[in-house]
Amino acid sequence: MSTSENKIPYKIYLTEEEMPKQWYNVRADMKNKPAPLLNPGTLQPMGYDDLRPVFCDELIEQELDNTTAYIDIPKEISDFYKMYRPSPLVRAYCLEEKLGTPAKIYYKFEDNNTSGSHKLNSAIAQAYYAKKQGLKGVTTETGAGQWGTALSMACSYLGLDCKVYMVKCSYEQKPFRREVMRTYGANVTPSPSQTTAVGRKILQEHPGTTGSLGCAISEAVEAATSAEGYRYVLGSVLNQVLLHQSIIGLETKAALDKYGVKPDIIIGCAGGGSNLGGLISPFMGQQLRGEATYKFIAVEPASCPSFTRGKFAYDFCDTGMVCPLAKMYTLGSGFIPSANHAGGLRYHGMSPVLSQLYHEGLMEARSVEQTSVFEAAEQFARVEGILPAPESSHAIRVAIDEAMRCKETGEEKTIVFGLTGTGYFDMYAYEKFHDGQMSDYIPTDADLQVGFDGIPPQPQE
Amino acid sequence: MSTSENKIPYKIYLTEEEMPKQWYNVRADMKNKPAPLLNPGTLQPMGYDDLRPVFCDELIEQELDNTTAYIDIPKEISDFYKMYRPSPLVRAYCLEEKLGTPAKIYYKFEDNNTSGSHKLNSAIAQAYYAKKQGLKGVTTETGAGQWGTALSMACSYLGLDCKVYMVKCSYEQKPFRREVMRTYGANVTPSPSQTTAVGRKILQEHPGTTGSLGCAISEAVEAATSAEGYRYVLGSVLNQVLLHQSIIGLETKAALDKYGVKPDIIIGCAGGGSNLGGLISPFMGQQLRGEATYKFIAVEPASCPSFTRGKFAYDFCDTGMVCPLAKMYTLGSGFIPSANHAGGLRYHGMSPVLSQLYHEGLMEARSVEQTSVFEAAEQFARVEGILPAPESSHAIRVAIDEAMRCKETGEEKTIVFGLTGTGYFDMYAYEKFHDGQMSDYIPTDADLQVGFDGIPPQPQE
Repeated sequence: MSTSENKIPYKIYLTEEEMPKQWYNVRADMKNKPAPLLNPGTLQPMGYDDLRPVFCDELIEQELDNTTAYIDIPKEISDFYKMYRPSPLVRAYCLEEKLGTPAKIYYKFEDNNTSGSHKLNSAIAQAYYAKKQGLKGVTTETGAGQWGTALSMACSYLGLDCKVYMVKCSYEQKPFRREVMRTYGANVTPSPSQTTAVGRKILQEHPGTTGSLGCAISEAVEAATSAEGYRYVLGSVLNQVLLHQSIIGLETKAALDKYGVKPDIIIGCAGGGSNLGGLISPFMGQQLRGEATYKFIAVEPASCPSFTRGKFAYDFCDTGMVCPLAKMYTLGSGFIPSANHAGGLRYHGMSPVLSQLYHEGLMEARSVEQTSVFEAAEQFARVEGILPAPESSHAIRVAIDEAMRCKETGEEKTIVFGLTGTGYFDMYAYEKFHDGQMSDYIPTDADLQVGFDGIPPQPQE
Repeated sequence: MSTSENKIPYKIYLTEEEMPKQWYNVRADMKNKPAPLLNPGTLQPMGYDDLRPVFCDELIEQELDNTTAYIDIPKEISDFYKMYRPSPLVRAYCLEEKLGTPAKIYYKFEDNNTSGSHKLNSAIAQAYYAKKQGLKGVTTETGAGQWGTALSMACSYLGLDCKVYMVKCSYEQKPFRREVMRTYGANVTPSPSQTTAVGRKILQEHPGTTGSLGCAISEAVEAATSAEGYRYVLGSVLNQVLLHQSIIGLETKAALDKYGVKPDIIIGCAGGGSNLGGLISPFMGQQLRGEATYKFIAVEPASCPSFTRGKFAYDFCDTGMVCPLAKMYTLGSGFIPSANHAGGLRYHGMSPVLSQLYHEGLMEARSVEQTSVFEAAEQFARVEGILPAPESSHAIRVAIDEAMRCKETGEEKTIVFGLTGTGYFDMYAYEKFHDGQMSDYIPTDADLQVGFDGIPPQPQE
């Protein structure tokens, strides 16, 4: 460690004055823009008016805006951000020492709030625009529960009604997640449910089903479009979500710049892409503008390998096929990922922005198996004092792998990864791990083919 | 809000350079020192050599030192502190606005670590001195689980063995707490157990017992004294614990001083006194030296009212009566507090330092009922974005009460309270609250008399 390195504190906090005042829209710097959402019936691109029944007006504008690089963060949202932001950028001195690596490891830790993850960054923005539009409330789905919790918090703060469709198996296995949402006054329904037509249809066809994220999305969309004064909001995948989550990357970059540190490798876990997209956006922007180069690594579960084994195609975002089609790396909306404790990463698709970047070779992707993920999680917890969420631990796994590679080669690379949240509600998974009852399941090519068969015919180019 | 007030950020973080380098020992400024621990057989004060079979050497020195005001924090502990400290001092702007109070509310938030509470401040210190002495490991008890988790973390970091006796009902009701301790490699045993003579005796006499903190202490002490290379460590009550926890108050004071803020009221929840004692120590020191006056309020559960309805007397610290006698406010070591979700406050006694200060009228105490505590917790969660632990919510309750009093009188008082941790592992309690199934139990005078009858004959003055 050089003298100047010694000056970097364990945790870098920005002051309120140093906090970003604008979100960054990476699409503005992309030569090839992400493909537009298509109407599933006509296969025509969906414009502002087409999307209005489902989404809030101002969010649609953000969704469709591929050219404005910086968008002001409204004061109300900035004030809310101050409640739990800036989040610290932590120098993992203890982990580095334990690994004996010459690499310098940093992580952006997004758990300074009760939702337990980065999801609040977009939840408050979406709730704010819904409120501004004079709506009564919003609907959404949640799998692992982080997004539902975040949205419940945001709605409670703004006095909006919040209806959450929670994947049934999560609802039953994670009663405490449900209880946090109730603390914030949300209405939580296990999905599939009898409250929607699509839910009733799914229950009739699959009476014993414990639900899926795709199915909960269908129900939430129906609930929003069939009630007066409601809109649907989504915690990942969409362009607007990546825009809001850019706060993660902007803070990370500002903190690194403050100490003159330039990262070599930037790593994030990827389910729908909200954290990864937010973390890498400003760095990717530099790369797209030719100002710098980085190695970006998306990490996904081997059990749900959208990037590493999926197809780049237009596909449905939900099981009920009521949502627009999005062009993305997908395993097919009918793909049922095997049980995996990183519930937040069990989604068949991927952000169209990230999909486009990956397709162009601007980032890498790796899939990892869950027992190796929990090994990394425990190793990290013991030296860094943070109990990571299973989702976040995917990024930890690859950060440790990269640091160990540096140990072999002697390279002093600077590694940054996103630590999206804590695992307080995932102790059942840790228990399975401790008891040696955790298995790794990797889908066969035949398993994947079942999903691929459900991808709809592609529009003519 | 005046212009100067506007400059105070939502969260005040000290820099690493501003972090305290020494702990503060409030006993040095007390005219009347806390009464010494007594040998339960001879009723003679216990000196260094008497305590060596149970406690670590350097910790005994700290326990007995009533005169040194400042004690250096060893570099190894300072470095560990940097992993999760400084903790933020948060200005509760959102809560103030919601309450419509002219009061200014600050809270010191001690949850920047996986143990989920302030307990780690003393755990790392105690583990460090055990390691320095060349011991193999330490034993302890835990009720709610915060202390056990914190000690597990500290021991894992230093490579010490850690044996935790966990009150059986907690062990069964909080499997996830147990799992966090296992993540840190601790050996967790439900108490009472067959692993100790005192455990076997208690099980024989009360076959269906679900245990108590007093009983778990007895087992942990026996486990330490009957094994080579082990000592017993305790997370509250003791003078040394208050010394280590003074980091909370020192940081709080430094953060307030940085912005020229002088608090009027300082509030903390009180079980054994670790958080309250740590928070108020430097402020109490000023008061004892005649430099300032503050209103200090200890908040305890109405179901376990050591301060407000207890006796100031020498009593046993544990059920098995193997520990030294301590002079403190006590409900009697045989008092069984009713079921209450603030497990960390269910202790019959109280820190001798705080007991002495309270006895001299230097601080106030209030008892509050748990439904009103959970009302305050939920109100706080919805505006401040933090899900508080039931223990911490006792302080929130009284902080809100005091702020509402300011609203009536128009006084712009500055209120500081300690937010000791988060409630992620307490959602069962929140669920009971949401479902209207939470009851308030206040012991009758007859209930208390049963406990008082067990207080041993007092030594002659």
